[in-house]
Amino acid sequence: MTSTAKTIALLTDFGYRDHYVGVMKGVIAAIAPAATVIDVTHGIPPQDIAAGALLLRHSRPFFPPRTTFVAVVDPGVGTARLPLAIETRTGARFVGPDNGLLWPAAEAAGIKRIVELRSPRYRLPHVSATFHGRDIFAPAAAWLARGVALARLGPHVKNIARLDLEAGIKERAQLLAGTVIYVDSFGNLVTNLDRARVDRFVARFRQSRLSVRIRHRAPIEMRSAYGDALIGAPLATFGSFDLLEIAVRDGSAADYFAAGAGTLVTLRAER
Amino acid sequence: MTSTAKTIALLTDFGYRDHYVGVMKGVIAAIAPAATVIDVTHGIPPQDIAAGALLLRHSRPFFPPRTTFVAVVDPGVGTARLPLAIETRTGARFVGPDNGLLWPAAEAAGIKRIVELRSPRYRLPHVSATFHGRDIFAPAAAWLARGVALARLGPHVKNIARLDLEAGIKERAQLLAGTVIYVDSFGNLVTNLDRARVDRFVARFRQSRLSVRIRHRAPIEMRSAYGDALIGAPLATFGSFDLLEIAVRDGSAADYFAAGAGTLVTLRAER
Amino acid sequence: MTSTAKTIALLTDFGYRDHYVGVMKGVIAAIAPAATVIDVTHGIPPQDIAAGALLLRHSRPFFPPRTTFVAVVDPGVGTARLPLAIETRTGARFVGPDNGLLWPAAEAAGIKRIVELRSPRYRLPHVSATFHGRDIFAPAAAWLARGVALARLGPHVKNIARLDLEAGIKERAQLLAGTVIYVDSFGNLVTNLDRARVDRFVARFRQSRLSVRIRHRAPIEMRSAYGDALIGAPLATFGSFDLLEIAVRDGSAADYFAAGAGTLVTLRAER
Repeated sequence: MTSTAKTIALLTDFGYRDHYVGVMKGVIAAIAPAATVIDVTHGIPPQDIAAGALLLRHSRPFFPPRTTFVAVVDPGVGTARLPLAIETRTGARFVGPDNGLLWPAAEAAGIKRIVELRSPRYRLPHVSATFHGRDIFAPAAAWLARGVALARLGPHVKNIARLDLEAGIKERAQLLAGTVIYVDSFGNLVTNLDRARVDRFVARFRQSRLSVRIRHRAPIEMRSAYGDALIGAPLATFGSFDLLEIAVRDGSAADYFAAGAGTLVTLRAER
Repeated sequence: MTSTAKTIALLTDFGYRDHYVGVMKGVIAAIAPAATVIDVTHGIPPQDIAAGALLLRHSRPFFPPRTTFVAVVDPGVGTARLPLAIETRTGARFVGPDNGLLWPAAEAAGIKRIVELRSPRYRLPHVSATFHGRDIFAPAAAWLARGVALARLGPHVKNIARLDLEAGIKERAQLLAGTVIYVDSFGNLVTNLDRARVDRFVARFRQSRLSVRIRHRAPIEMRSAYGDALIGAPLATFGSFDLLEIAVRDGSAADYFAAGAGTLVTLRAER
Repeated sequence: MTSTAKTIALLTDFGYRDHYVGVMKGVIAAIAPAATVIDVTHGIPPQDIAAGALLLRHSRPFFPPRTTFVAVVDPGVGTARLPLAIETRTGARFVGPDNGLLWPAAEAAGIKRIVELRSPRYRLPHVSATFHGRDIFAPAAAWLARGVALARLGPHVKNIARLDLEAGIKERAQLLAGTVIYVDSFGNLVTNLDRARVDRFVARFRQSRLSVRIRHRAPIEMRSAYGDALIGAPLATFGSFDLLEIAVRDGSAADYFAAGAGTLVTLRAER
């Protein structure tokens, strides 16, 4: 038995002020004392499902392959949306609400099987209407980490909510346009344009000068590291997400451009 | 020997900016490397003993039964208030200052024995006047997790400071009144009216319409889940504390009602 | 094999909002699943190398002796500054950028050997220009915790960037002057004047009245604990750092004095 099967990673929008995350960890420790619990983050902007989905998708490949991820950004807690667990080809498992949050990460890992977390045996005895993280999701992950088979947690589910992080990307003629999908705590603006897509675009316009713009502001230079720009100057780079990112050296691009999630970012090849 | 005897849970008002919590964990790891340390939270509002006491009391039942809780909200650090350790009937142990913080949780778990943390052997060699979390409380918890008997930490103590979270509740005729005792990071207003008390009140007025009010504002509807209210609308519900809670769907009740700890909440049976 | 060789402690300015710290922990868990990972803090003010260096130096002695510290406050990430690992006489090891951050802690522990983290075998396969915490530092610490010898991580380095936390201290006649080098989350102003230096100064002026001043404001009284001052009153004390600290009982000295890092603090012996 390897320890790597026993990693549980948590991602929520619960913040750090309350005891909510602590109680989830208490529940996990009571069921699966040998599990190693890692916080991906609990700082997802409240109820921002897309931000949670992006960070979950991006984080998964850096964790032990058989990690069980519990993700809770769940404005619909207590309503009809299903609680889910998903098994993937990489060995990673995902536990959380059926609202799109798990989709991009699970899809990237290769979905094998989805179940609804319906079995009372693998929930807490009393399930509240407001805190499924504690009552349903944490116990499910702990039982999975203890070796319970996914299929025992509840009935098979065929269709789940999807979330397309690439929505809104447009490519035509000399223009490639995407949107900011995440603003990190440094104020870096992370777009949904990945390196492969930008590289293909650039390859098509090898002879051209390439400009990156936020809305219709002055063009921003591409740099290979934050430190390559002057202090206070904006730059475009492929950050740690391998997504096109707009940053300001030692500053906040979100403040500099008054930009945030949804802001248009364009690459243009100028002949 | 089971791992569940080795869980240490931390709750403080130290926040996440400084190294204070990290150093406490370093001290624990140096004494009890096999202990599993879980953060309940370090986001208790600075010096808010009642908020700490509430979250500690509420969190305890979700942790492994033999967890050692270290709680530090301690405006009187360095003065005459005693440092304590408490053993309870459930197996849970509590370590912290004698200022009421530990009382509601320990009382609910059934107090068996209380000692003053006086033995120099189970403190750090140098005890500062400002950081007993590091110098007294973390070492005590670590030694307890290593199997040292509570009685060895210091002399028996008979009377400790109490804290009544139910203070201020009034019930007469058709009125049940309590107060907000905690505001969580979502802005939910948690009162000191528990479900059993409200159920008894409701049972007495089966024929009546029931209204929940904050101060003398318009009545708020009872809902079974946040998602059952319209977006932006207030609701009253039994949240994850099993205490009556005033919330706003996808919003902050604290902002909506300009309310906080101490605000009056009333239930009235209207015949 | 003792567990104490397997503690990895993390200190960064990454904050708690993003997944950056979580991903570093994922990388560590994938390489060294048996390591115990402890957060010193991730709340270092962004890019404040001196604050990080102070907290690292101060935290180290409270951790298990053979802890591997990973510290990342790294405005120069992706530029020419070297990634380092340092072995010390106490058994503690330090991993991070060559910008002074590691120096005070490593110097205090007694530097034995320094290497540049150049070996591709102990990095992630793809090294980004923006996130060496994930791609270089976390893997290096995990391999060290697994028992890989420091020398295998890369070539020996002779000179590294130094950082003098005692810079700016002046002592002459009846005056000892230092500066605030850290403001904690309670608003306490931590100076670079340590207890030994102040004690020597005091011993020289045994007959005199001693006054502590921030800039040229009214003198502040020395107290042995925060609780010894009146509520709302300022005091000077040796806090948990064993450095002279200016505090306000149940309040913020930073707000009270509108002071911060760099503010002058003087002790004067008045005959």
